[in-house]
Amino acid sequence: MNTFSQVPPGFRFHPTDEELVDYYLRKKVASKRIEIDFIKDVDLYKIEPWDLQELCKIGNEEQSEWYFFSHKDKKYPTGTRTNRATKAGFWKATGRDKAIYLRHSLIGMRKTLVFYKGRAPNGQKSDWIMHEYRLETNENGTPQVYICIDSNPYVIFNS
Amino acid sequence: MNTFSQVPPGFRFHPTDEELVDYYLRKKVASKRIEIDFIKDVDLYKIEPWDLQELCKIGNEEQSEWYFFSHKDKKYPTGTRTNRATKAGFWKATGRDKAIYLRHSLIGMRKTLVFYKGRAPNGQKSDWIMHEYRLETNENGTPQVYICIDSNPYVIFNS
Repeated sequence: MNTFSQVPPGFRFHPTDEELVDYYLRKKVASKRIEIDFIKDVDLYKIEPWDLQELCKIGNEEQSEWYFFSHKDKKYPTGTRTNRATKAGFWKATGRDKAIYLRHSLIGMRKTLVFYKGRAPNGQKSDWIMHEYRLETNENGTPQVYICIDSNPYVIFNS
Repeated sequence: MNTFSQVPPGFRFHPTDEELVDYYLRKKVASKRIEIDFIKDVDLYKIEPWDLQELCKIGNEEQSEWYFFSHKDKKYPTGTRTNRATKAGFWKATGRDKAIYLRHSLIGMRKTLVFYKGRAPNGQKSDWIMHEYRLETNENGTPQVYICIDSNPYVIFNS
């Protein structure tokens, strides 16, 4: 049974990209209250992907995706950090960013990252995948970026 | 966006058999209050499968399954009705009933039915499928049975 008490049994969190960006990310960035505050704040650089499972649980349900917010910090004030490193490895972008539209307007972008164990450029590719969402427009001019996610726990253990 | 206002955006109703039987059906049969009353009461014999879509919507989300409660009425007081007929056709059981367990105890059964257009025994099989759930134990002795449901709207139009 689902014990996530504020949502009735049978409801599971399977948000669309539009919902993540237009509701959750937009509210978070604007510091507005999110109705049910189940998406945790995480410091992505201090946590390994396999430790997210426990931290980002939603009720008692089986999950194969975890959602969290994390500030994207920069290596250098003027540049962009490309290797998002943890103790055990690093996240590396893959493919092209995907544009996210709501009623034909661009509202955000989704970057896909893969986790490599070890240190760049010699890391060993894993099967952990993360999606990083960012708002396309930012009212106050600061490139404030939060990360949501999803990762695949089952596959990682094989790789 | 999900406008089903009592559940936050991104949550979708994908209940397990155990949740349907142990929470929704058990409460309904016992006439207990269901937290969010989004599962409609329907007279299955007066409605065609393709009309359930509108009636059993949950918020604004795209659905390929619809849930409802319906009394199972009997053709004869002592018998069991095998053909659940509507104006356009009838529901016919297929396969074996599936036992539903919760922590190793049998709590209910799931019957699968297929919708045939026309009249038995000459109906034309469609791609609408329904699951009928019943409680295994019934405290007051009356075989009170409710039906939940799921059907496939996309396929029916091809058949």
